[in-house]
Amino acid sequence: MFQSFDETADPQAGPARLAGLRRVMAAQGLDGFIVPRADAHQGEYVAARDDRLAWLTGFTGSAGYCVALMDRAGVFVDSRYRVQVRAQVADAFTPVDWPETGLADWICAHSPETARIGFDPWLMPLQQRRDLAQRLGGRTLVPCNNPVDAIWEDQPAPPMGAVEEYPQALSGQSRDDRIARIAAALGECRSVVLSLPDSIAWLINIRGSDVAHTPIAHGFAILHAAGTVDLFMEPAKCAGLDLGAQVTVQPPAAFLTAVARLDGPVMLDPASTPVAVADALASAGISIQEAADPCQMPKACKTDVELAGSRAAHLRDGAAIVRLLSWVQAQTPGSFSEIDVVTRLESERRATNALRDISFDTISGAGPNGAIVHYRVTHASNRSVQDGDLLLLDSGGQYQDGTTDITRTLSIGQVGEEERRCFTLVLKGLIALSSMRWPAGLTGRDLDAFARAPLWQAGLDYGHGTGHGVGAYLSVHEGPQRLARSGTVALEPGMILSIEPGFYREGAFGIRIENLAAVRPAPALPGQTVGQMLCFETLTFAPIDRRLIDPDLLSQSERAWLDAYHAQVLAKLAPALPPDVQDWLRQACAPL
Amino acid sequence: MFQSFDETADPQAGPARLAGLRRVMAAQGLDGFIVPRADAHQGEYVAARDDRLAWLTGFTGSAGYCVALMDRAGVFVDSRYRVQVRAQVADAFTPVDWPETGLADWICAHSPETARIGFDPWLMPLQQRRDLAQRLGGRTLVPCNNPVDAIWEDQPAPPMGAVEEYPQALSGQSRDDRIARIAAALGECRSVVLSLPDSIAWLINIRGSDVAHTPIAHGFAILHAAGTVDLFMEPAKCAGLDLGAQVTVQPPAAFLTAVARLDGPVMLDPASTPVAVADALASAGISIQEAADPCQMPKACKTDVELAGSRAAHLRDGAAIVRLLSWVQAQTPGSFSEIDVVTRLESERRATNALRDISFDTISGAGPNGAIVHYRVTHASNRSVQDGDLLLLDSGGQYQDGTTDITRTLSIGQVGEEERRCFTLVLKGLIALSSMRWPAGLTGRDLDAFARAPLWQAGLDYGHGTGHGVGAYLSVHEGPQRLARSGTVALEPGMILSIEPGFYREGAFGIRIENLAAVRPAPALPGQTVGQMLCFETLTFAPIDRRLIDPDLLSQSERAWLDAYHAQVLAKLAPALPPDVQDWLRQACAPL
Repeated sequence: MFQSFDETADPQAGPARLAGLRRVMAAQGLDGFIVPRADAHQGEYVAARDDRLAWLTGFTGSAGYCVALMDRAGVFVDSRYRVQVRAQVADAFTPVDWPETGLADWICAHSPETARIGFDPWLMPLQQRRDLAQRLGGRTLVPCNNPVDAIWEDQPAPPMGAVEEYPQALSGQSRDDRIARIAAALGECRSVVLSLPDSIAWLINIRGSDVAHTPIAHGFAILHAAGTVDLFMEPAKCAGLDLGAQVTVQPPAAFLTAVARLDGPVMLDPASTPVAVADALASAGISIQEAADPCQMPKACKTDVELAGSRAAHLRDGAAIVRLLSWVQAQTPGSFSEIDVVTRLESERRATNALRDISFDTISGAGPNGAIVHYRVTHASNRSVQDGDLLLLDSGGQYQDGTTDITRTLSIGQVGEEERRCFTLVLKGLIALSSMRWPAGLTGRDLDAFARAPLWQAGLDYGHGTGHGVGAYLSVHEGPQRLARSGTVALEPGMILSIEPGFYREGAFGIRIENLAAVRPAPALPGQTVGQMLCFETLTFAPIDRRLIDPDLLSQSERAWLDAYHAQVLAKLAPALPPDVQDWLRQACAPL
Repeated sequence: MFQSFDETADPQAGPARLAGLRRVMAAQGLDGFIVPRADAHQGEYVAARDDRLAWLTGFTGSAGYCVALMDRAGVFVDSRYRVQVRAQVADAFTPVDWPETGLADWICAHSPETARIGFDPWLMPLQQRRDLAQRLGGRTLVPCNNPVDAIWEDQPAPPMGAVEEYPQALSGQSRDDRIARIAAALGECRSVVLSLPDSIAWLINIRGSDVAHTPIAHGFAILHAAGTVDLFMEPAKCAGLDLGAQVTVQPPAAFLTAVARLDGPVMLDPASTPVAVADALASAGISIQEAADPCQMPKACKTDVELAGSRAAHLRDGAAIVRLLSWVQAQTPGSFSEIDVVTRLESERRATNALRDISFDTISGAGPNGAIVHYRVTHASNRSVQDGDLLLLDSGGQYQDGTTDITRTLSIGQVGEEERRCFTLVLKGLIALSSMRWPAGLTGRDLDAFARAPLWQAGLDYGHGTGHGVGAYLSVHEGPQRLARSGTVALEPGMILSIEPGFYREGAFGIRIENLAAVRPAPALPGQTVGQMLCFETLTFAPIDRRLIDPDLLSQSERAWLDAYHAQVLAKLAPALPPDVQDWLRQACAPL
């Protein structure tokens, strides 16, 4: 299975490791050291060798920091992990509510003005170093060799996942076209250094297997204005790969030397480029021009071929979801568990013979577990799914033609009126955004509230964004597009986003309904006065549990949307399903 | 009447005045000079003596600039005035589309790098000087005596409108309380210089009569951290006024001397403080701390007493509107003009015996004139109101207890289906915002789209913001609150805003429906999980033309909102109306 249900952290080991870390810090003349969750490529998933935060502290969340001082060690976690961190770290570590308390504020509160605070210059982006430095008073930020690596005796080796070509038949653009496009966007810069693996994967049409759930290959790239690319990646990972005349593979060890020999100005994204790269340029007297990674926007705006791939992946994935849903409904409440659902779902996806990976650990939360927004079921937390439960199921698949991400909330047996009311309000938000048309130029921030307004009218809301960008067989969480108050980038045709309003009643139940949708030009209407309008094309097809809908709370147009959506689900998915599942789907997709 | 229908500008005089201006510029060693519409107090209305832009160029719009170079003179106007400016200025002036073309870009395109560009340091705020200076290449910005004033032989004297006390019974806060509150907000600053007349009026509970339509008194103030205020205002304007022990009136001529003697740091709002003030501080070596005018937010959040006054003013004003509407409906189409409606409306407002002024020139636009968003009817443009016209009527009154601003669009005779469809879509937007509840902390930007979404679904939109802040017997356009994509300030209880979606079909018709509303805490609902929610309390009561509504386009809850609103209009206004108008109102407010 792609997912495990074990607790992977080892909290008891933490105190001894912290003591060892402090001995190395002392030897290096440091009063503190910052251990981020991130690796050098700032991705959501890290390789085993880069999981320094979990190894040191026991905390296994997907974001956070440890700041080790000589007399205390803070573990900085966001609101998702406030409960989890207390169970995972030993008393030697102090959980800190982050970002409410910033790293710099905490460091200033607990260290003298003369303190020297170490950090690994590969693990901290330029912008973060600058922000921290401004807030540390007289304290010094010192780039250093990573003392965690110095004491981690059995630290795994860097990942050596094989790299494969991503066919132009799936990307819709040749490697040469993409390289030429980015080269043309450099302006007066002579080159750009790329450190985000999904930017590199997009640019030269490759996919890798260095981390779980995201088909990326760790490496760095330098794109030169002349239209050539130096790719710094273990040559063994690229064995047998023909990357064309423009791309030269070089060993990672050659990277910093090559950086120090560039002509300026060199373009860097301060949000993601490691300090080590910027410092190497600065030491060599090479000028830097800061700009957003130039691959991000073109990567976010999928080609027609990528969109066609995504549609195909979603139909395949939707059929697997339908088989799972019909199975769940056939079970007797109380006779199966959250883990049973995860296991069955993965087997249904594997049965497509096209699954490369799941796109993240499936969230399968019954009853009160559904209210934990980033719940990951373990053997310890596993709950029997009971009559009256809502079951929140958030999952996705990585297929070569597309990445999926879908949430459905299922009624188990007979659920209460309050659950149905809240589910219907969440559904109204999904419909409002899914059926929106808007003038080109608006951002995710301008639209986010439409998914919340039906809940607001009832005094309710949810504490997460309404949607995130999704890659084309790449990261399931992709920027810069977002449907959220923090979404400040204009939505452009071809962007894929999730639409996932929810509602969570702590200790009782959780609701989320999530479809992926692509931004598309909206066909002009008779008498239209707005120049260019955009709309969403829903990509996800799977039934929304009709037993949880209170039809009286829906307007006529909302009912019409739902009935039309279900008619599409049936028409698109039924042909691929066995007769008994077809029968189930026909009932699940009946008009309200 | 408070409103005239004459063309006030004198375009023919422009070329000779421009020639005279250039002679003075040459004598001062200037290659250019910037003439803004604004006065030293950055208000929407200026006194006759400050109307330099209209005097020089003939252009009478409420915003813009002239930049006079030696060989050309640009008149910079925004999209509202593109047609008007061509009719108002002589060939010696070149209309420029602003802000698409910025002042600095235009100056750089048409002057050598060594050019010296003059400006009046009283008429340009600090921030604008800084922005301009950064964009002018090698050119120099030179503060100078205003050469327009040098050639304007019969320039009117500064206004000497009497100042009156604004009773605490209407403001709800004493002068001393307000002074103490702002003094406490100065932080480490020793004083703040205030140059916005409505801030000063709010702070010391006064109102003035120096400009049309807004009861402000021109002057400057210095508030000291110790809780005293130096008010620089013609003592004759304040004759007989007791401003208490904290406030000392001094002649305007003493202002700059007093500024130069302040202890630092001195707080200044760079968006509104004249360069002359900042330069006086800098010359005296006094440190400046830039911050938003500290009176703006407390002024925007009305007291309960101010809100009660606003409610009373709106009922009085609504009754006058109803008398006007019933009069219009009794007229034979073709027998009355746009001006007749304006005249009648002002007489109805005057009949309340409480009208101090109108809050702006009434917009009365029939048929295609309604599509001109800032239309002001003149004898030349006046149109007979015909069968089949929509009549767009946007007006407001200044009463001592509150400022009103209301737009109604009226059906004259039998109007077409397209007009009714568009009117109903605009109404849906008004209802969506008027009935919204939202979590505290959101800004106008987060809500603006709700008023547009029904139009967007039909491919339509409007080119202006959804709403502006409104003062308490002060400016009808008040910041910082806004319902617009540019509205970045959180909406707070007590703020008054207009909600005014519209739709304009050029050359055919215009639609706008506008109510004022106050932001209020929303009563908690059973099971509410959001801490503090806010909502709008509609302040404006007057019927919305039922003949223009297509009920089939409204949802059940939208119909319910409208019927409940009309029931309130009838209940609140009928008692003050004569029996025949009551009868008319009963019909106009009947359920859909």
